[in-house]
Amino acid sequence: MKLQSNATRITARAVTSATLLYCSLAAAQTSAPTFPDAKQSDPQANAVMQGFPPPPDKTARFSDGSASKFPAYRWSFSHLRELMPSAEVSRGEGPIAMLPREERDLGSVKLTTMDGASMTFDEALQKTYADGIVVLHKGKIVYERYFGAGAPLRPHAGFSLTKSFVGTLASMLVSEGKLDPSAPVIKYVPELKSSAYGDVTVRQAMDMLVNAKYSENYADPNAEIWNYSRAGGWIPTRPDYTGPRTYYDFLVTLQKQGEPGEIFAYNTVTAEVVAWIVQRATGQRLADLLSEKIWSKIGAEKDAYFVVDSIGTASGGGGFNMTLRDLARFGETMRNKGQFNGQQIIPTPVVEDMTKGGDKQIFATGGYKTLPGWSYRAFWWVTNNDHGAYMGRGIYGQALYVDPKAEMVIARFASHAIAGNPYNDPISLPAYAAVADELMRSTEAGDRNPK
Amino acid sequence: MKLQSNATRITARAVTSATLLYCSLAAAQTSAPTFPDAKQSDPQANAVMQGFPPPPDKTARFSDGSASKFPAYRWSFSHLRELMPSAEVSRGEGPIAMLPREERDLGSVKLTTMDGASMTFDEALQKTYADGIVVLHKGKIVYERYFGAGAPLRPHAGFSLTKSFVGTLASMLVSEGKLDPSAPVIKYVPELKSSAYGDVTVRQAMDMLVNAKYSENYADPNAEIWNYSRAGGWIPTRPDYTGPRTYYDFLVTLQKQGEPGEIFAYNTVTAEVVAWIVQRATGQRLADLLSEKIWSKIGAEKDAYFVVDSIGTASGGGGFNMTLRDLARFGETMRNKGQFNGQQIIPTPVVEDMTKGGDKQIFATGGYKTLPGWSYRAFWWVTNNDHGAYMGRGIYGQALYVDPKAEMVIARFASHAIAGNPYNDPISLPAYAAVADELMRSTEAGDRNPK
Repeated sequence: MKLQSNATRITARAVTSATLLYCSLAAAQTSAPTFPDAKQSDPQANAVMQGFPPPPDKTARFSDGSASKFPAYRWSFSHLRELMPSAEVSRGEGPIAMLPREERDLGSVKLTTMDGASMTFDEALQKTYADGIVVLHKGKIVYERYFGAGAPLRPHAGFSLTKSFVGTLASMLVSEGKLDPSAPVIKYVPELKSSAYGDVTVRQAMDMLVNAKYSENYADPNAEIWNYSRAGGWIPTRPDYTGPRTYYDFLVTLQKQGEPGEIFAYNTVTAEVVAWIVQRATGQRLADLLSEKIWSKIGAEKDAYFVVDSIGTASGGGGFNMTLRDLARFGETMRNKGQFNGQQIIPTPVVEDMTKGGDKQIFATGGYKTLPGWSYRAFWWVTNNDHGAYMGRGIYGQALYVDPKAEMVIARFASHAIAGNPYNDPISLPAYAAVADELMRSTEAGDRNPK
Repeated sequence: MKLQSNATRITARAVTSATLLYCSLAAAQTSAPTFPDAKQSDPQANAVMQGFPPPPDKTARFSDGSASKFPAYRWSFSHLRELMPSAEVSRGEGPIAMLPREERDLGSVKLTTMDGASMTFDEALQKTYADGIVVLHKGKIVYERYFGAGAPLRPHAGFSLTKSFVGTLASMLVSEGKLDPSAPVIKYVPELKSSAYGDVTVRQAMDMLVNAKYSENYADPNAEIWNYSRAGGWIPTRPDYTGPRTYYDFLVTLQKQGEPGEIFAYNTVTAEVVAWIVQRATGQRLADLLSEKIWSKIGAEKDAYFVVDSIGTASGGGGFNMTLRDLARFGETMRNKGQFNGQQIIPTPVVEDMTKGGDKQIFATGGYKTLPGWSYRAFWWVTNNDHGAYMGRGIYGQALYVDPKAEMVIARFASHAIAGNPYNDPISLPAYAAVADELMRSTEAGDRNPK
């Protein structure tokens, strides 16, 4: 299914390199909302996909594209496996690592958005079409809510959150000596020799420093994003389609646009390349590798899954689906420098290396207005703020926000009416910071006020 | 994907109403095997779907039909969710009901096939392309093996085993007063008024007594089975296909061939109708209903799943996928008259009603040569033998065989080279009986001989 709203879709990158458009849309969004709000678009309340069969106007299908339109996708993102083939990421057979609880009313925490508006945390979640939120403080669940089609045991599409898992796996393999970051990509995937990845190192790919000709301009029917989506099985193909039908067949077609290492070029396809590399380096399918190294060790409650292309290839750029509490467990593992559930799951130096961030000046070439001073490394977004916070991010507002100083992890799913974090960040980033401040303040004051 | 071997496919019903053909094929099978045997066709040994990408001749795809051909389907049946969309059947959050173990070497148990051949149980499993076997005796695992693509935590396509779950749910709803077996089908599904189900009762549908015009003659391009398969998304459609794209849209097109209640007419579509009915009667999706009533109560190890059509409708005729040990847990629940895992999961009278069997004379109209004296009720196959044994059966040799007298449950997955239990039964049924005898003998002798 296409990851697209029925409005003009603006990706983070396209938006930030077209600031005027972004500003006008952002203004339009607050002054004259184009879309039904979270409550109006709630798929449960609207009985989306309820009934045998559901009424035609409440049916979300892959084949006619209806499942990928707002507001239907607010159902779809919690049911991706019902629309596409998928591969299990097994939780293994071990016990669940129960997260202790010490719940408190964080919903009333006040914040000021980047646009200067005042609202509560609860209101921020609604404004950004949250499907669920889990906040951990010192490893305890202090806040957990589900909205719309979200549910505790229902995996949700992570989209680009996926990349942070792939970057973590790649970094672990580097640490194990199974992957050479300074080696050319084509050491592992010779098929990419004539592509944009022909003169790129593994490290450059892991840090999104590959300048491939890859347009996500949805208005252009020849944009590469369309063939990427068709190749991966995210959108239906027309009968006359003769293009690539696997990620691999598509990736080899990508052409060079500029020299590697010069600009921050956030392209989903580069994460797919790294996923290809880690599979070649290990001989393991991505789903199995993620299970072995992470999912089977964090005491996950549920098996997770990847959506897959026509030959079973997991999408390492956007195909991972998991529950919110399990995402939080992974975040807690990161916060604890790789330790969780009684084990060292990720080596501490690996976590430190990923979360130290990358080159700020190169990151600035991406033009992300909502992320000033940030950087990027191993598919993690690093704030470089005084809390040392870092994030995994998905295009509809999915987030794993780790704030080491506040000892806080926020796992959040969303299905925003508009694709692109510029529509989330002005509310969500101040909201996460406000919650962190509240947790730190109450800790200092000894005022834990458990409900 | 098409549930078909690349040989002429003979369904149980087609075969038994064309005995000559069956006999000649059966003879051919033993005297001059047409297909690679289990070892030769082992998908693991043959590296099917291994590599990034797998080599073209080792790739099993939905879109070109390669996944549905023998021997590729020996991989596919253990990976159906990677080929088709699917809906989870949740195991819930409760603890796993661990099955105690007291393993013994049942592999050397000797048996004589219906054709008079002598072989061991292990040989019988190989001859019938088993993907896995679990034997419970008095609730303990006494034998467990996996072959080919089978694995303990990997759900396998149950195909018509699915029907026994649907029949059990329907029977439970009858017992709860939520479903009236004497009511017409159209009380619940008025859309079927002009179809073959227009003058049929719920009970008749549950017992496969509906004589619909429904051909599974694969040599006939106009046979209804093709549109059933296209409607359910089991096979790719051609660009010019304009037929039904959901089970429901297909079911309403089925026409009457004869009066209900007169003959045993084993048609997958009738199970789809009953699945439709139970969803209408409860307002719950089949996957959720099965989870609530059974899967979340048996202490299952794994979530299970249904493959679904283009609007998320689970296939109640053949779409259920589960692990072998979880299937065994369900079998043990049945053997214990509905009690398992410390609860009464299915009311005892419901189990007794289903397993008492149906009308033997009507069953005989089906012409199942390998099932003399058997009968059928609520989508269960009942031997009517002196052990009171009964079965759920899938077309490639999937089986849940419950033998109350021997206090034995056999759960077995297979991916036989030829679709149709006439190719399994001559070996498998004597094999199950031989194991039952062995278990009873050793119990009587007090000779348990645990390994």
